Amino acid sequence: MQRAIAILDSGVGGLTVAKEVMRQLPQEEIIYFGDNARAPYGPRAADEVMEFTEQIVGYLLQFQPKMIVIACNTATAIALQRIRSQVDIPVVGVIHPGARAAIKKTKNGCVGVIGTENTIRSGAYQQALQSISPTIQVVSLACPKLVPLVENRMFRSEEARQVVAESLRPLANSPIDCLILGCTHYPFLAPALSEVVGPRVSLISSADETAREISAILYHRGQLAQSGKLPVHRFFCSGNPGVFQAIAQEWLGEQIRVSPVMWQMTRLSAE
Amino acid sequence: MQRAIAILDSGVGGLTVAKEVMRQLPQEEIIYFGDNARAPYGPRAADEVMEFTEQIVGYLLQFQPKMIVIACNTATAIALQRIRSQVDIPVVGVIHPGARAAIKKTKNGCVGVIGTENTIRSGAYQQALQSISPTIQVVSLACPKLVPLVENRMFRSEEARQVVAESLRPLANSPIDCLILGCTHYPFLAPALSEVVGPRVSLISSADETAREISAILYHRGQLAQSGKLPVHRFFCSGNPGVFQAIAQEWLGEQIRVSPVMWQMTRLSAE
Repeated sequence: MQRAIAILDSGVGGLTVAKEVMRQLPQEEIIYFGDNARAPYGPRAADEVMEFTEQIVGYLLQFQPKMIVIACNTATAIALQRIRSQVDIPVVGVIHPGARAAIKKTKNGCVGVIGTENTIRSGAYQQALQSISPTIQVVSLACPKLVPLVENRMFRSEEARQVVAESLRPLANSPIDCLILGCTHYPFLAPALSEVVGPRVSLISSADETAREISAILYHRGQLAQSGKLPVHRFFCSGNPGVFQAIAQEWLGEQIRVSPVMWQMTRLSAE
Repeated sequence: MQRAIAILDSGVGGLTVAKEVMRQLPQEEIIYFGDNARAPYGPRAADEVMEFTEQIVGYLLQFQPKMIVIACNTATAIALQRIRSQVDIPVVGVIHPGARAAIKKTKNGCVGVIGTENTIRSGAYQQALQSISPTIQVVSLACPKLVPLVENRMFRSEEARQVVAESLRPLANSPIDCLILGCTHYPFLAPALSEVVGPRVSLISSADETAREISAILYHRGQLAQSGKLPVHRFFCSGNPGVFQAIAQEWLGEQIRVSPVMWQMTRLSAE
């Protein structure tokens, strides 16, 4: 039996990971869960993010996926270790792949990270970067205004460009030579982000890098799909399926069906 | 106890992997073996390459490494699966990391691969690329004259530039948008290669990509070194240690000590 890759996010951000998985691993089936009823996770209390993540993982496990991808930096920072200890399939987060890509990319050893309040407050990127390469300098900045622009489908607006410019102002004179997009929603804003930081700073998408790491891990476990057939992906969301579907179809460039999920979900059996 | 990463190659080519491991994972200790007495492996019979690889792995196992890196595309194509079945630590080759990076990079789905006769004849890159992404087009080219230029320390010469230009001529009108350097010796020739293919074709170093994959695998196994101390690397070679040391020091940009190894090596116990 082909088993799917389960991807979860607070909303539509994880679609940036899903799109790259679809592109880099076209034979893999995806089951996606976007918790758009409760997005954004960035400003929420940590134990709430933990509870929501466990709830969604419990829901996704009914499909017997071969891997869980926590395609949300906030949930990765807070819940990755605990989820790993609870399930017996690989659980991949989005923080280490981005950190590794930045270590490979940086020439001057000075790396910027932008993310939600929770992600930045957790220090997870700094920890991931410096545990691998202790001399790396890390400049972190919380950008709480960006996720709502994406969830409200305003990511191509002039207002979005202005909010991005304003949010990134504290980095203006920083010596960073690469900037980790430490939130899977941010690739939606890549044109504006790229314009603001200029050509000397490379943007690193934790989403793209995670897709590649998923490929590496499945290969080393001998679990890459080899069907030769194109898979049928499934999308679930907890909030407005119309908005979710519109953003997803625009981002993925294809028609999808979205199933709304009511909030009486299976809980993890450990609870 | 800190355990080292063991890296092997037919000669100095694997130093391109070692250098990237040193840069991306500065806390990891490396034990390197270059079989320069018997380089190049490219034109040798497959069973000979298999035997040499097993012999070197047997030698390296005495140091109880945590991972074996077959930093030679020829040996990866021929021996990776067999070595994997013989040892109980992860064995990483250089073909899949390069393939994955190309899949991530290519925009038009047309990828070039250059390598030794053995690597190209094996079809290993085509297999790796198309097993993941069946519609990728692959243009392969054997370049047997390049490894000797590197092993003889002529990689910066005008002759090297001419040999590279001549070797790559069959790719001149190819639609490829990225070119996998499917031999770990080739990054030594990167300036010439880059000049010949021009700015529209991205070079993908299987060496750099392998270093990143080593980082991912060690992280997911919880085996990244976290000493905070700089490690002392060890280098062994089967041939002329003077030439090996000169090339290694020039490439790595630091002083190293090389221990010559006589060819009465431990064999794998399975034999």
